[in-house]
Amino acid sequence: MSHILNFGIPKGSLENATVDLFKKAGWQISISSRSYFPGVDDAEMNCKLIRPQEMGRYVERATIDAGIAGRDWVRENEADVVEVCEMVYSKVSRRPARWVLVVNGDSAVKGPEDLRGATISTELVGFTKRYFAERNIPVNVEFSWGATEAKVVDGLCDAIVEVTETGSTIKANGLRIVCELMESVPVLLANRASWADPWKREKIEQIATLLKSSLAAEGMVGLKMNAPADKVELITRMLPSLKTPTVSHLYNSDWLSIESILSEKEVRQIVPELIKLGAQGIIEYPLNKII
Amino acid sequence: MSHILNFGIPKGSLENATVDLFKKAGWQISISSRSYFPGVDDAEMNCKLIRPQEMGRYVERATIDAGIAGRDWVRENEADVVEVCEMVYSKVSRRPARWVLVVNGDSAVKGPEDLRGATISTELVGFTKRYFAERNIPVNVEFSWGATEAKVVDGLCDAIVEVTETGSTIKANGLRIVCELMESVPVLLANRASWADPWKREKIEQIATLLKSSLAAEGMVGLKMNAPADKVELITRMLPSLKTPTVSHLYNSDWLSIESILSEKEVRQIVPELIKLGAQGIIEYPLNKII
Amino acid sequence: MSHILNFGIPKGSLENATVDLFKKAGWQISISSRSYFPGVDDAEMNCKLIRPQEMGRYVERATIDAGIAGRDWVRENEADVVEVCEMVYSKVSRRPARWVLVVNGDSAVKGPEDLRGATISTELVGFTKRYFAERNIPVNVEFSWGATEAKVVDGLCDAIVEVTETGSTIKANGLRIVCELMESVPVLLANRASWADPWKREKIEQIATLLKSSLAAEGMVGLKMNAPADKVELITRMLPSLKTPTVSHLYNSDWLSIESILSEKEVRQIVPELIKLGAQGIIEYPLNKII
Amino acid sequence: MSHILNFGIPKGSLENATVDLFKKAGWQISISSRSYFPGVDDAEMNCKLIRPQEMGRYVERATIDAGIAGRDWVRENEADVVEVCEMVYSKVSRRPARWVLVVNGDSAVKGPEDLRGATISTELVGFTKRYFAERNIPVNVEFSWGATEAKVVDGLCDAIVEVTETGSTIKANGLRIVCELMESVPVLLANRASWADPWKREKIEQIATLLKSSLAAEGMVGLKMNAPADKVELITRMLPSLKTPTVSHLYNSDWLSIESILSEKEVRQIVPELIKLGAQGIIEYPLNKII
Amino acid sequence: MSHILNFGIPKGSLENATVDLFKKAGWQISISSRSYFPGVDDAEMNCKLIRPQEMGRYVERATIDAGIAGRDWVRENEADVVEVCEMVYSKVSRRPARWVLVVNGDSAVKGPEDLRGATISTELVGFTKRYFAERNIPVNVEFSWGATEAKVVDGLCDAIVEVTETGSTIKANGLRIVCELMESVPVLLANRASWADPWKREKIEQIATLLKSSLAAEGMVGLKMNAPADKVELITRMLPSLKTPTVSHLYNSDWLSIESILSEKEVRQIVPELIKLGAQGIIEYPLNKII
Amino acid sequence: MSHILNFGIPKGSLENATVDLFKKAGWQISISSRSYFPGVDDAEMNCKLIRPQEMGRYVERATIDAGIAGRDWVRENEADVVEVCEMVYSKVSRRPARWVLVVNGDSAVKGPEDLRGATISTELVGFTKRYFAERNIPVNVEFSWGATEAKVVDGLCDAIVEVTETGSTIKANGLRIVCELMESVPVLLANRASWADPWKREKIEQIATLLKSSLAAEGMVGLKMNAPADKVELITRMLPSLKTPTVSHLYNSDWLSIESILSEKEVRQIVPELIKLGAQGIIEYPLNKII
Repeated sequence: MSHILNFGIPKGSLENATVDLFKKAGWQISISSRSYFPGVDDAEMNCKLIRPQEMGRYVERATIDAGIAGRDWVRENEADVVEVCEMVYSKVSRRPARWVLVVNGDSAVKGPEDLRGATISTELVGFTKRYFAERNIPVNVEFSWGATEAKVVDGLCDAIVEVTETGSTIKANGLRIVCELMESVPVLLANRASWADPWKREKIEQIATLLKSSLAAEGMVGLKMNAPADKVELITRMLPSLKTPTVSHLYNSDWLSIESILSEKEVRQIVPELIKLGAQGIIEYPLNKII
Repeated sequence: MSHILNFGIPKGSLENATVDLFKKAGWQISISSRSYFPGVDDAEMNCKLIRPQEMGRYVERATIDAGIAGRDWVRENEADVVEVCEMVYSKVSRRPARWVLVVNGDSAVKGPEDLRGATISTELVGFTKRYFAERNIPVNVEFSWGATEAKVVDGLCDAIVEVTETGSTIKANGLRIVCELMESVPVLLANRASWADPWKREKIEQIATLLKSSLAAEGMVGLKMNAPADKVELITRMLPSLKTPTVSHLYNSDWLSIESILSEKEVRQIVPELIKLGAQGIIEYPLNKII
Repeated sequence: MSHILNFGIPKGSLENATVDLFKKAGWQISISSRSYFPGVDDAEMNCKLIRPQEMGRYVERATIDAGIAGRDWVRENEADVVEVCEMVYSKVSRRPARWVLVVNGDSAVKGPEDLRGATISTELVGFTKRYFAERNIPVNVEFSWGATEAKVVDGLCDAIVEVTETGSTIKANGLRIVCELMESVPVLLANRASWADPWKREKIEQIATLLKSSLAAEGMVGLKMNAPADKVELITRMLPSLKTPTVSHLYNSDWLSIESILSEKEVRQIVPELIKLGAQGIIEYPLNKII
Repeated sequence: MSHILNFGIPKGSLENATVDLFKKAGWQISISSRSYFPGVDDAEMNCKLIRPQEMGRYVERATIDAGIAGRDWVRENEADVVEVCEMVYSKVSRRPARWVLVVNGDSAVKGPEDLRGATISTELVGFTKRYFAERNIPVNVEFSWGATEAKVVDGLCDAIVEVTETGSTIKANGLRIVCELMESVPVLLANRASWADPWKREKIEQIATLLKSSLAAEGMVGLKMNAPADKVELITRMLPSLKTPTVSHLYNSDWLSIESILSEKEVRQIVPELIKLGAQGIIEYPLNKII
Repeated sequence: MSHILNFGIPKGSLENATVDLFKKAGWQISISSRSYFPGVDDAEMNCKLIRPQEMGRYVERATIDAGIAGRDWVRENEADVVEVCEMVYSKVSRRPARWVLVVNGDSAVKGPEDLRGATISTELVGFTKRYFAERNIPVNVEFSWGATEAKVVDGLCDAIVEVTETGSTIKANGLRIVCELMESVPVLLANRASWADPWKREKIEQIATLLKSSLAAEGMVGLKMNAPADKVELITRMLPSLKTPTVSHLYNSDWLSIESILSEKEVRQIVPELIKLGAQGIIEYPLNKII
Repeated sequence: MSHILNFGIPKGSLENATVDLFKKAGWQISISSRSYFPGVDDAEMNCKLIRPQEMGRYVERATIDAGIAGRDWVRENEADVVEVCEMVYSKVSRRPARWVLVVNGDSAVKGPEDLRGATISTELVGFTKRYFAERNIPVNVEFSWGATEAKVVDGLCDAIVEVTETGSTIKANGLRIVCELMESVPVLLANRASWADPWKREKIEQIATLLKSSLAAEGMVGLKMNAPADKVELITRMLPSLKTPTVSHLYNSDWLSIESILSEKEVRQIVPELIKLGAQGIIEYPLNKII
C-alpha cells in the first residue's frame, strides 16, 4: 500500500501566506476558486482546505493527519493533538494575534473581576467561559456572528473578547483593551496516531524542516568578496559569528574568496567597513532557504 | 419625551437591497464603511446594522423595537417576536431562500429517515436538531463555520443542511438535494412590548405601508392616452380590471383622457389593441409607489 | 402547437444597448456569463446571442426568425432577408458606424483609384472586393484578424478598410481617412418565410412597435402646468405642434390644466416663455414610451 | 453672425456633479478622456473644461462668457465678474466647503491673533494674506503644492488654511480647527461685458433657470389620487400649502382626481392620513424639474 | 549594412508569457498599450506584435525572419517555414493546447466517421477540411467567429472543432469530446531564406539557446553546503547524477564545500538525508538559467 | 545624544521607485495611505514624504538633512544645497525627464526667439522666466495648475513649457516640440551644514553607497561554469575585463571553477562562445548588489 499524508491548509486569513510558504519550501499547492481540494505536486500528500476553527476537530478525528492553524482555535476546541512546532510566518510584517478583553472607552471596568454578571460577546465562547470560570467570575458569554466591536460600542453587550494584531481597529472605535487573554501563533498540528506511525512522522518532520528553513531565509542574503590573504582574518572576525564564513583559495593568486550569510541589516552596517579593510568584488545574492 | 423607534437593518446579503427599498419608500439610510451606525433622515428613527442571525435575539430583548431579517434565523433562534409582514423583495430577480438537506451525488440516501446515526454539518444547528427530533431520527448535528458544501464532498460529514436559491452551486459540486426543510423570505419583526405601544405600532405600520407600496410599484407603469368619447367604454373594458382607470373630459373637445396603472407585461400586450381601437397620444410613464 | 419566435440578440458592442432597449420596451432579457442562451420573460419568444457578422446568415436560413444586427454585416454577407426597420439606438450619444478607407498619414493616395494593384487589409472582405470591382480597380483584398490599423502603420499592407465612429483612433495612429465606403446603423431583420407567417409577422411587428416607442421617448419628457382660461390659447399655440396638448378643466376654478409631450431641448427653450405668459406650477416628468 | 455662449465646466471634484445637473436640466455634455473639449448638444453653446482655480481668470478676461466654480477661488483671484446665482448642488449629500485655520492638536493657538509672525501654508495664498492683513496680524503665507495637512503635522509650518467638508481628515491627522475663514458654495459667474449683452444675458439666465428647476426637483415627487367630492376639501387642506393641488372632475362620476407636488418626506407622513380619509388609487411618480 | 533580425511576438494568450521568457533570457521587450511595436534592448532585433493566426504567413513571406506561435496555426496555414524548436513554456502550470472534435452530450456520434454530411463549425477551417478529406468523410466545414461552443449547443451546427486545455469549459456546456485531432505547443519558426543566411541563423540559434536555458532553470535551484572530507564521497553519491557537483577545498581546514544544481522537488527529498550525513551550512539559492 | 538623520522621500511619481530602491539597499520603508510619515527600520533615520517641488526648499532650510528629488525642481527653486550624487533609477525602463517648449502643431514658431511678447503657461515659472531673460526675449510666463497641454490646444496661451519622457502625449494632442530647455534626473541632496557634520556625512555616504550598489546590480547577474585547466585562460580572457573573474580549484580534479559578474546583455552574447570553448555546467544566478 502506498503512503499518503492528509494535510490541512487553513482557509481564510492564513491561506495565501501558507501557500506561499509551501512554494518557497518546494511544494506547489494550487487552489482553484471552483474546488475545495487544492492540488499538490507530491504524490505522498493530499491537501484539504479547512477552516482554522475546525482544524483541531478533524486532526483529532484523523480525518487529516496534520495541518496548520492558529493555536487559539486549537485551545478553543480543546483538541487532543500533537503540536509539532510553531510557524512564525514573518519576523517583519506580521505580529502574533492577541485575544483581548475589550470595553467601551468610558467604561469603569479595570479588570476581568469587574465584569461579574456581565454579558460578553465573542467568537471564542468555550475559551472565554473557561477563562472566567477559572477565576470564579460568573458571566454570560454569548456567541457573536461577527462585527463584534460594534456590539459593545452599541451597548448590545458589556464587553467583548476579540482578536487583534495592532489594536488600531479597537482604538478607532473608541474602545479600550482591559487585558490580554491569550497570544496566538500558527502551529503545525498532528494526529496522535499519525505521529506514532514512523512513515507519517518522518513525512511531517520533512515538511516542518523545509517550511522552517524557508522562514529562516527571510531577510537573509549571501555576501561574497575577494581579499588578500593577510586581511582574511580581520574580515572574518568582523563577520557575524552565527555561521562560520566559507573561505577558499583562488587560482594562481594569494587572494582568497570569502562567502558568508548575513541579514540585510547587517550588510548595510558592514559594507563600509569591508571597503575600508580592502575587500574587493563584493556582491550580494538572494537566498531561498537556510537549513 | 420625544418618540424614537430603534430599527435593525440586516447586515450582509440583504443589506443593499434593504437600503434601496427604504430609499424608494422615502428614507435615506447612509451606511459608512467606518461606522456600524447608519444615519437616517427621520428624527423619529435610529438605525443599527445587525447580523440577520442575531436580529431575533435583539428584537426579543427590546434592544431594538423592530427590524428586518430572514424568517429562517427567527425560527433558528425561536425568537418570541411579532412577525408584522413578509417583505418579498423582488418578484423578478430574487427567489425565496430554501434550506435543503444535501448529500453526495452518488449517495444512497432517499429521505431524512435514511440518515439515522449520521453526522450532519450546518450553520442552522438548532432548527436542524428540532427537525430530526420531531421525526424521531437520531443524528449528530455539528456547527459548520462555512464552506459547508465542501464537507460533504470531502467526506467530513454524511449530509449537510444548506441554504440555496437556485441549487446551481449544489449541482456544480456534484451534490444532490434530498428534500427541502424550510423556505424563507425576509420578514419585518417587532418586539412584543413595542407592538403594544400605540405610537411605536403606528410608526412600524407607517414603515410597513411605505415599504410595501414601493415593492408594489415594481414592474408597474402609468399609461395615458386620449380617445373619442364613443370609444372610451371599449377601451376601458380592455384595461386590466384591478384598478379602475381614471377618465376625464378634455377642454373644448368631445375627446376624453384615459389613465391607468398596468404592469409592463400588460402594456406590451395591450398597446397593439389600443392602436386598433383608435387611442391616440399614448404615453407610458414610470411610478415610484402604488398604495 | 404553441407559437414561438426565435430572436437573435447581437453579441458584442450592441449587446448591452439591445438588452437595455428591450428592458425599456417591457421585456427582461437576462444574459449569464456562463451561458449563450439569454432568458426572456415572454413565453412566445426564444432568444439567442449571435455575432452580428453571422446574424444575416442565420436569419436567411431560418435558424432564427428575426434579429438585430448592423446593416454593414448584412450587406457583407449579401443575406437574402427582410429589413423590417432601422433601429437608431440613440440620437444623442451614438453615431452611425462608418467603414472608411485608410492609409498612412504620409501616403500620396488621394482616392480609391490610386490603389490600383495595392494590398488592402480588412475584416469586411466581400464588401470591399465588390466596392473596388464596381469601380474597375484591381486590388488584392486580404482578411485581417484584428489590429488592422497596425498593419498599415507597419507596412504590412498599403491600405485598410476599417470601422470607426469618430475617427479618433485612426488619427491617434498617424493614419488618414481617404474616403467613406459605407455608413451603417442597426437594423431589425426577418426571415422571408417568417415574415409571410401571419402570427410571426404580428409578433415581430409588436416587438418593433414597442422598441420604437421606447426609442421615441428618448430625450422626451412630459410638461404639465396650470393657466388662466384666457391664456390657454396663447400657451397651446406656442407648444410644439406635433402632439396636441391635453387641456382639462380644474375643479371650482376658471383655470385649466395643460399637459404636453416635448423634447428636453424644447423644454429648455420654452420654459422662459411660459413663465412670461403666466403659466404656474410648471413641472416636468420622465417618460418611458411614446407610441 | 450667429450667437455663441462660451461656458466653463469645472474640472475636478465638481465635474461629474455639474455634468449630471446639466443633463437633468436638458443639456447633454459629453466629456472624453482623450479631449479637453466637452461636446454639448446646443448650437448656441461651447463648453470648456477649466480648473476651478482658473475659472475666474478666464471669465474676467472674456475667454469664456460664464462658468461654474467655487466662490472660494473667485475670491482668491479677486476676479472682477458678475456672480449670477449660487448653485447649491444637493441639500442631501453635500455640505458647503469650509476653509479653516488649522494647527497641531497640542498647539496653544486660540485665535488668528496668536499667529503673529508665524508661517502659514495654504493653496489659497491671496485670500489668506488679505484675511490676516485686514486684522493687522503680520504673518508669512506660503504656497503649498498639496498634502497641506502633512506640513503642519510635520512642523514644516505653524498653521495651515485648508478646505474641508466634515473636518474628519483634519481630526484623523491629530490637528485642530482654530476658526473658519470662509464658507464656499459653487456659483455661476458671468463676464461683465457678456452680462451687458442682451442675448448673452438671456442665454445665461435661461441656463440658470433650468439648472435651478432641476435642483428644486431633488427629493420631490408627484402624488395622484382619486377621492369622493365630499372629501376633497379635507384632503386638499391637509396637503402642503406651498403649491395648490390640481383638482379635476372624473367622467361620469362624482369622484375627483387630486394631484400635488410634495417632498418624499411629506409623502411618508401624509400617506397614512390620506388612507384614513378615503383616498383611493394613490400613486407616486418621479419628477425631473419644478419651475 | 548592419544586421537586423525581425522577430514576431505572439499577440494574445501567449503574449505575456513570451515577454516574461525573453526577460529571463536577457532581453527587455516593452509593450505599450498605445503602440503595436514593442521595444527591445537589442540593436540587432526588431520586434512586432503579430496574431498567432497570422505568424506563419508573415514568416513565410519574410515580413519577419522568425517568430513564436502555436504549431496549430502553422499547420492551419500550411506555412512553408522552418520549425526551429518547441518552446514548452512551463512544465508546471500549462498543458499543451488540444484541438478536439466536440458534439452535444446526448449525440449518438462515436467517431469522425459518424459525421458524414454534417456541418462542422471551427476557427481552424483548413486543417479540419484536410483532416476529414484524408479520411474520405464528406463534411461541410464553416468558419466560426468565436463562441464556437454555443453553436453546437444551440443546434447551429452538428459538431465543432475547438481548442481546450483541460476540457472543463466543454463539460460545463454539456458537450462531449469525440476525439482529439491535434495537440499543439508553441514553436519557434524561421523563414527559409533567413535560416539559410549565416548571420540570421546564428542570431536565431542564440535566441533559441537562451530561451531554452531559461526554461531549463524553471523549478531548479542551487544547493551549497560544507562537509568533512571523509563524508564528501557519500554526499556526492547521493546527489542527482545529471550534473556533477562542484567540490572545492576550504582554507586552513579539512572541510570541503559542495555545490550542486537540483530541482526543488529533489531538495525536499534530499535535505533530511544530508543532515543525517553531517552536512552543515546548507543553503539554497535561486537560478536564472541552466545552459 | 543619539544621532538622527532626517531624510526626504519624494512624493508622487518617484515615490514607489524610491521605496523599492531602499528595499533593495536593505532598508524597509513603509508608507501608509493614512499617514505622511513613512516608517523605516533604522533607528538612525527619520523619513518624511515631501513633494519634489518643495524638497530643495526644506533641505536648504535644514528641515531635513538630505533627500531625493528631480534636479529640475532644485534648479527651479535655486536651492543652495550640496548635490551628493545622481540617482539614475533605471538604465532600462526610465528615460530622463525633459522640459520642452511646445506650441500648436500648425504654429509658425521655429525657436524661442519667435515667442517675443507671447504668453507661456507652465508649472516651472521661475526657470522659464530665467531662460527667456538670459536670451533677452520678453515673454509673459504664467503659472499653470495642470492640464497644460490643453491650454495651448485651446488657445488659452501661445506656448507651454512642459515635462515629458517620450513626447507621446504631446503628439497625441496635435502639439509640436520647439526645443528642449532642460533634462532632469533624480539627485541626492544634502543640507550644507549636515554635510559638514562628520556623523551625518558618513551616514549620507553609507546610504549613497548602498543605493548605488543596488542600482549597479540592475541588469547584472552572476555566471558560474567549470572548465579544464588548459581552457581557463582563453575563457577568462573573453569575459568582460571590468571585474576579474574568480577562479578556484576543484577537488580531486584538474578542472577549475570560474565565476564572474556580467550584464544580462553580455551573457546573451557570450554564452554561445563559452559553449564552443568547452565550458560546462554553466549557470546564471541573480544578484542583489554590486559594491
